[in-house]
Amino acid sequence: MSLRFHIHHRDPNTLARVGLIHTAHGDIETPGFMPVATQATVKGLTPRDLYDLDAQLIICNTYHLALRPGAEQIAQLGGLHKFMNWDRPISTDSGGFQVFSLGAAIRDGVGKIADIFPDESMRDEVEIKGDRTPLCKIDNDGVTFNSHLDGSLVRLTPEKSIQLQHQLGADFILAFDECTSPLDTPKYTREALGRTHRWAERCLEQHARTRRAYQTLFGIVQGGAYRELREESARVIGNLPFGGLAIGGSLGRSKGDMHAILDWTIPLLPEDKPRHLLGIGEIDDVLNGVERGIDLFDCAAPSRWARNGALMVSRETAQREQIKNNRLTIANARFTLDTSPVDPSCACFTCAHHSRAYLHHLHRAKELTYYRLATIHNLHFILNFMRRVREAIQGDSWQEFRVANTLSI
Amino acid sequence: MSLRFHIHHRDPNTLARVGLIHTAHGDIETPGFMPVATQATVKGLTPRDLYDLDAQLIICNTYHLALRPGAEQIAQLGGLHKFMNWDRPISTDSGGFQVFSLGAAIRDGVGKIADIFPDESMRDEVEIKGDRTPLCKIDNDGVTFNSHLDGSLVRLTPEKSIQLQHQLGADFILAFDECTSPLDTPKYTREALGRTHRWAERCLEQHARTRRAYQTLFGIVQGGAYRELREESARVIGNLPFGGLAIGGSLGRSKGDMHAILDWTIPLLPEDKPRHLLGIGEIDDVLNGVERGIDLFDCAAPSRWARNGALMVSRETAQREQIKNNRLTIANARFTLDTSPVDPSCACFTCAHHSRAYLHHLHRAKELTYYRLATIHNLHFILNFMRRVREAIQGDSWQEFRVANTLSI
Repeated sequence: MSLRFHIHHRDPNTLARVGLIHTAHGDIETPGFMPVATQATVKGLTPRDLYDLDAQLIICNTYHLALRPGAEQIAQLGGLHKFMNWDRPISTDSGGFQVFSLGAAIRDGVGKIADIFPDESMRDEVEIKGDRTPLCKIDNDGVTFNSHLDGSLVRLTPEKSIQLQHQLGADFILAFDECTSPLDTPKYTREALGRTHRWAERCLEQHARTRRAYQTLFGIVQGGAYRELREESARVIGNLPFGGLAIGGSLGRSKGDMHAILDWTIPLLPEDKPRHLLGIGEIDDVLNGVERGIDLFDCAAPSRWARNGALMVSRETAQREQIKNNRLTIANARFTLDTSPVDPSCACFTCAHHSRAYLHHLHRAKELTYYRLATIHNLHFILNFMRRVREAIQGDSWQEFRVANTLSI
Repeated sequence: MSLRFHIHHRDPNTLARVGLIHTAHGDIETPGFMPVATQATVKGLTPRDLYDLDAQLIICNTYHLALRPGAEQIAQLGGLHKFMNWDRPISTDSGGFQVFSLGAAIRDGVGKIADIFPDESMRDEVEIKGDRTPLCKIDNDGVTFNSHLDGSLVRLTPEKSIQLQHQLGADFILAFDECTSPLDTPKYTREALGRTHRWAERCLEQHARTRRAYQTLFGIVQGGAYRELREESARVIGNLPFGGLAIGGSLGRSKGDMHAILDWTIPLLPEDKPRHLLGIGEIDDVLNGVERGIDLFDCAAPSRWARNGALMVSRETAQREQIKNNRLTIANARFTLDTSPVDPSCACFTCAHHSRAYLHHLHRAKELTYYRLATIHNLHFILNFMRRVREAIQGDSWQEFRVANTLSI
């Protein structure tokens, strides 16, 4: 069976909804957040740690895994679930976003390279080039690019991306699309959108041919920050027989643009399919996405912040510590003798067992144990936040929750 | 109370013995192995992980911790146990070995720099110099050296080392000694030994003045690879009122030298005090040390091997895999599709949950999760090996155990 989605409750004033996605590998409560496991591991954590954090779904990168160790190898090893020893649902992306990263993003210098490549080792490879020569070429049939690992030429088409994702064996797989840059003209964005729509149909055909029975294909709505294109894409993708829908690509140049894109798109999508906002998952973005009807989020920021020394805290703790955003900079010297946990209101393993002083020391000393403890904390924070989001919608207290938790007022 | 040591059983044919050391922070079964937690963390593991591995004692480095975060800071935070949130026994070294590393070891190019600095970040600092200018100066009162972190001048004397260790608050602390190089002349080694013996008395005096009630001071037998000096040192140190005894310094140029040093020394030491062989803990060394009367080992090799991709396996597994030593090189391409655990006979978390293929992938991708899983495996291996050592002595089957487990026959 592919996924089944039940919406249990709706907020009366917004498009926010709580639901449950049933999959062959277990249920996912929505709205939900998926930690990013680029190379079949959330950096520093084992699958057992993710169970302890109650992560219900993770997302892996087809691009990275197809290059190393190889989709064929993972298939021979029984698929991603068995390879990682993770028996809950998995999502994979199509490789389209990495193609964008190797192409337009480098050419235009848009997007933080850190957002594009959550894998630092890959980021180094790309930054070394520095000359903004795109590493990929797009044609109507697919894309050709150089591997960031060894420079070898790789060809990716809609069919190939779906086959790779079938081999990897994730529960949710994504259509192969073309992500455009915010700097692309309306003309180019329209041309790319045509490709994305034709590729969507080819992905569906390939999916019918080689999918494992439990796999569900998500379509991706593109169209840049252009209303007409987004609306067209929502109608086209929304009418195709995808099992779920994703919003991808350039979400404009500001938070306002992103909200507008969601406002244009989501009312045109079918009600009964789960909606995934690709690559987005900061607190304010979750609040804005949820009330516009988003069910699933993925984002590398919480775990990357953790590794970089930025530990997420509640609004109360942020106010007490007089920090403007919701992230405590653990490198700060004032934590040297601070025996309190990162966030006194947090129930994670790290806060239950270790002090700011100890984390400050481990961070300064660049100790491996730091990365683990920090990642556990930030992922607990965002996963626990999603639980509270669901409770707020379920309890008809979304407005109060939203006001109490918005950071940038 | 300081430590109490009970010997429960002795091997009838060798000096091997099983016992129990009682401390204010719990009991330690001997012969025992202490994982190295240089900077108040075993790299990649939390104290909770070490409980799961049944580690009963760990060793931290006074030199590293006094420089960062500072012994005074750790004292203000309630001592090492509270700082790390580890409530079992802790040992600290005196800083003498690091002084040796900054001095004679660099001058003479002896010892692997990796053995001297299990902390890679420090190793880099030292290797950058490369000119073999010793970073420290020894006089009769103490040593002066430059911090590897910021180059600042640091002065260490026997009194200062003991005070620092009192501030850190470990259960077992070590006398401040001078480690000589295997290239030192008998004349210089004798001169250094005289200093070590005078310093031993100064350490005892300082210990009486500022110790916490539960702390026990271990004396260190020195004397290089010279029989006369080792015997003299064993008599001098053995007759002083230390709570435990350690064998330190240059153990010669071969395994044979090390065995001879133990054979000369240990019969001259009092029977009723635990004996710690400093910085040694590979399988063959444990077998040779135990039957010469050693009770405690510490060694960074198992955890460093783990991080470098060398995973310890049983003799049976090593034979089946046709590897000469007992370490499987996980980077080897033949593990790409190997779904078996690192060692099928191993009961550790890593072997219970993950395949060689997954570890091979994580290692190649330099993923943080690799370091954790590999360290858990190797530390489980050596700690489980120590349990079997104790059972063999207790069960009067030491000879059979020793023969069955010796690697280099």
